[in-house]
Amino acid sequence: VSEEKLAAAQARFDSQAKPVGSLGRLEEFGSRFVAITGKDKVAGKRVYTFAGDHGVTAEGVSAFPQEVTPQMVFNFVDGGASINALARHAGAEVLVVDMGVATDFEDMDGLIKRKIAKGTANFAEGPAMTQEQAIQALLTGVEMARQAKADGIDLVGTGDMGIGNTTPSAAIAACICRLPVEQVTHRGTGIDDEGLARKILAISKGLEVNQPNPQDAVDVLAKVGGFEIGGIAGLILGCAAEGIPVVVDGFISTAGALIASELHPNVRDYIFAAHKSVEIGHHHMLHKIGQQPMLDLGLRLGEGTGGAVAMTLIEAGLQVLRDVLTFDQAGVSEGADQ
Amino acid sequence: VSEEKLAAAQARFDSQAKPVGSLGRLEEFGSRFVAITGKDKVAGKRVYTFAGDHGVTAEGVSAFPQEVTPQMVFNFVDGGASINALARHAGAEVLVVDMGVATDFEDMDGLIKRKIAKGTANFAEGPAMTQEQAIQALLTGVEMARQAKADGIDLVGTGDMGIGNTTPSAAIAACICRLPVEQVTHRGTGIDDEGLARKILAISKGLEVNQPNPQDAVDVLAKVGGFEIGGIAGLILGCAAEGIPVVVDGFISTAGALIASELHPNVRDYIFAAHKSVEIGHHHMLHKIGQQPMLDLGLRLGEGTGGAVAMTLIEAGLQVLRDVLTFDQAGVSEGADQ
Repeated sequence: VSEEKLAAAQARFDSQAKPVGSLGRLEEFGSRFVAITGKDKVAGKRVYTFAGDHGVTAEGVSAFPQEVTPQMVFNFVDGGASINALARHAGAEVLVVDMGVATDFEDMDGLIKRKIAKGTANFAEGPAMTQEQAIQALLTGVEMARQAKADGIDLVGTGDMGIGNTTPSAAIAACICRLPVEQVTHRGTGIDDEGLARKILAISKGLEVNQPNPQDAVDVLAKVGGFEIGGIAGLILGCAAEGIPVVVDGFISTAGALIASELHPNVRDYIFAAHKSVEIGHHHMLHKIGQQPMLDLGLRLGEGTGGAVAMTLIEAGLQVLRDVLTFDQAGVSEGADQ
Repeated sequence: VSEEKLAAAQARFDSQAKPVGSLGRLEEFGSRFVAITGKDKVAGKRVYTFAGDHGVTAEGVSAFPQEVTPQMVFNFVDGGASINALARHAGAEVLVVDMGVATDFEDMDGLIKRKIAKGTANFAEGPAMTQEQAIQALLTGVEMARQAKADGIDLVGTGDMGIGNTTPSAAIAACICRLPVEQVTHRGTGIDDEGLARKILAISKGLEVNQPNPQDAVDVLAKVGGFEIGGIAGLILGCAAEGIPVVVDGFISTAGALIASELHPNVRDYIFAAHKSVEIGHHHMLHKIGQQPMLDLGLRLGEGTGGAVAMTLIEAGLQVLRDVLTFDQAGVSEGADQ
C-alpha cells in the first residue's frame, strides 16, 4: 500500500468542489483502492465462494442438513443463488471453489475443484483437520489470488458456503479474540434456543478438547476451523501479496480474515470489511482486525453477498475521484474551511 | 402502496433458497419498491436537485459565500459535481431546478427555471417567504413528480443546493420535532464554534420572531424554510400521489420529507431514507417520519449524493427478487426454520 498514492487521492478529494471530507467514507473507499492498486478505476471484479463441509454438524448445530452444501454449489454454478444475483448487480464474476464438500463433483464450468477432504472431522471430538490440510487450504486461497491477478482482476470478494460453518467461525473468534463462547455464538441460518445451546456446547468442547493456541493461527484453523475458512484466509493473504483489494463478506469470511491478519498484520491494509453481520460475534472480530463495516443491512447469508454489494460502494468512491471537478476547474469559490 | 404486492414480494423472498430473511434490508427495499410500483425492475431513475438561496446567510451561518449556490448550479448542469458523478454511477439522470437562487440564469439544458424569488428573506427578522410562495414551492415539486411519471421514471431521488440551507432545515426540525435548537443544529459545510453559536442564535431568533405553528407545516415552511426545501417537500408529495418511490437524501432533504409527511402521513410509505447524515439533527427527523437510514457513510454533502448511492441498494434487492431460485426450483433442501 502506497502512503504517497493514498495522500494524493485524498488531496484530490480535498480539492474537489465540495466541503472537505463531505463524502465521508466514500472518499476513504476510493483513496484506499488507489493506495493499493495505483488505479482509479476497477477493471475486473470476482467473488470466490469457497465451499466445505463440517464434521461438527453431527452435534446438531445447524438448522439445515449437510446435503445443502453440494446443492448450493450446483445452484452457484447454475447462477441461481443470491451471490449470483448480487454479483450480477455489481458486475462481478463468481467462481466456486470446492475446498472440502462431502460430495464428489463432476467437472463443471465455474467450479474449481480443490477438495482437501470430504468435510472436516468433528472438532468437538478432536482436530477438524491436520496442520498439513490447514496449510493446503491456505495455499489454495493464495493460488486463487494469483490466478485473479493473472486474469486482470483488481477487486476480489470473499464468499463461503458450508452448512454448519458459523460454528467453526465462532470457535475461531472465541479463541483468537479470547472471548467467552456465548459472546460470539449466534443463530447462523436460524437455529432455535436448543440448537444455540448445543452449538455453544460443541464449541466449548472443541476448545477444551483441542486447546488451540491463540497465538498460532494455523493451529486455530486446523483444530477448530474449516476448509473454506482456510481458503478465504489464504485468498486474503494472496490478495495482499498481489496488491489486490479484497472485500471481506460477513461472519465466516471475517473468521478467515482474522486468521490471515494474525498470520501477517499488514493484510489489514488490503481488507475492506463489507458489512456488519447479524451474528453477535462479528463486531468483535472486525474490531480485532481494525476494520469498520461499510454496510449495515441486517445480512446473515454469506456466499459473498454483502461483499458484492460493498464493491459497488468502492466504485462509487472512485467515480467521485475521477469525475468531480476541483474548485478551480469548476469556478466555485472556496469556503472558510478550505 | 399495495399490501398484497408487499406480501407477495416477501413471500417470494421467503421461498428463495436461503435462510428466511437472511438478506435483511435488501429484501425490505425490494419488497417496498414492488409494493409501490407493482414492478420488480427499475425502468428509469432521476435525481431532482433543487437550488435556492437564503436570506439568513446574512447572520453568518455558513462557511461558504452565497455566490457558491449559482456556481454549483453551473457545475451541476456541466456534469462536474459530486451528484453528477454518483448519479452516473447509479445510472440516474440529474435535473436541476432553480427554485430561488439569487442570480438570474440563461436557459440551459438540465436546468428547470422555476424561480420564486431571488432568495428567501432573512428569517431571523421575519418570515422567510409568504404563504403563497411556500405553496408555489410545494406545487413546483409536485409538478416535477408529475413530469417524472410522464417520462417513465419510477425511482426518484431528492437533492438540494443552497448555501446556508442547513439553517432553515434545523429550524424546521426544531419546530416540528419540538426539540431545543442546540439538539438539531450542527456544522453544515464546516463552520467553526463561533459560526455554530451564530447559527443557533439565528434559528432561535427566527423561531421567536416568527412563531411558526408546528401543526401547520406550510406555516413552518413559509416562516423558517427555504424554496428548495419546499420543492423537495412537494416532490415527495407528488411522488406519493403518482406512486413513485422517492429516495430522500440527507439533512436538508429530510427537512422537506418532514414537511411532506406532516401534510399527509401516507407519504411515509413512499419514502426511502437514503443515509444517516453527520448532522446531529438528522436522526430526530428520521425518527419522526418513521424511517431507518439505508446507509451510514459519514456523508454531509447534500445535492442528492446519498440518495443516488441508495438507489443502487434498492436495485440490488430487486435483482435478488428477480434472479434467485426457490428451494424447489434449485433442488435445495429446506431447513428446520422453513
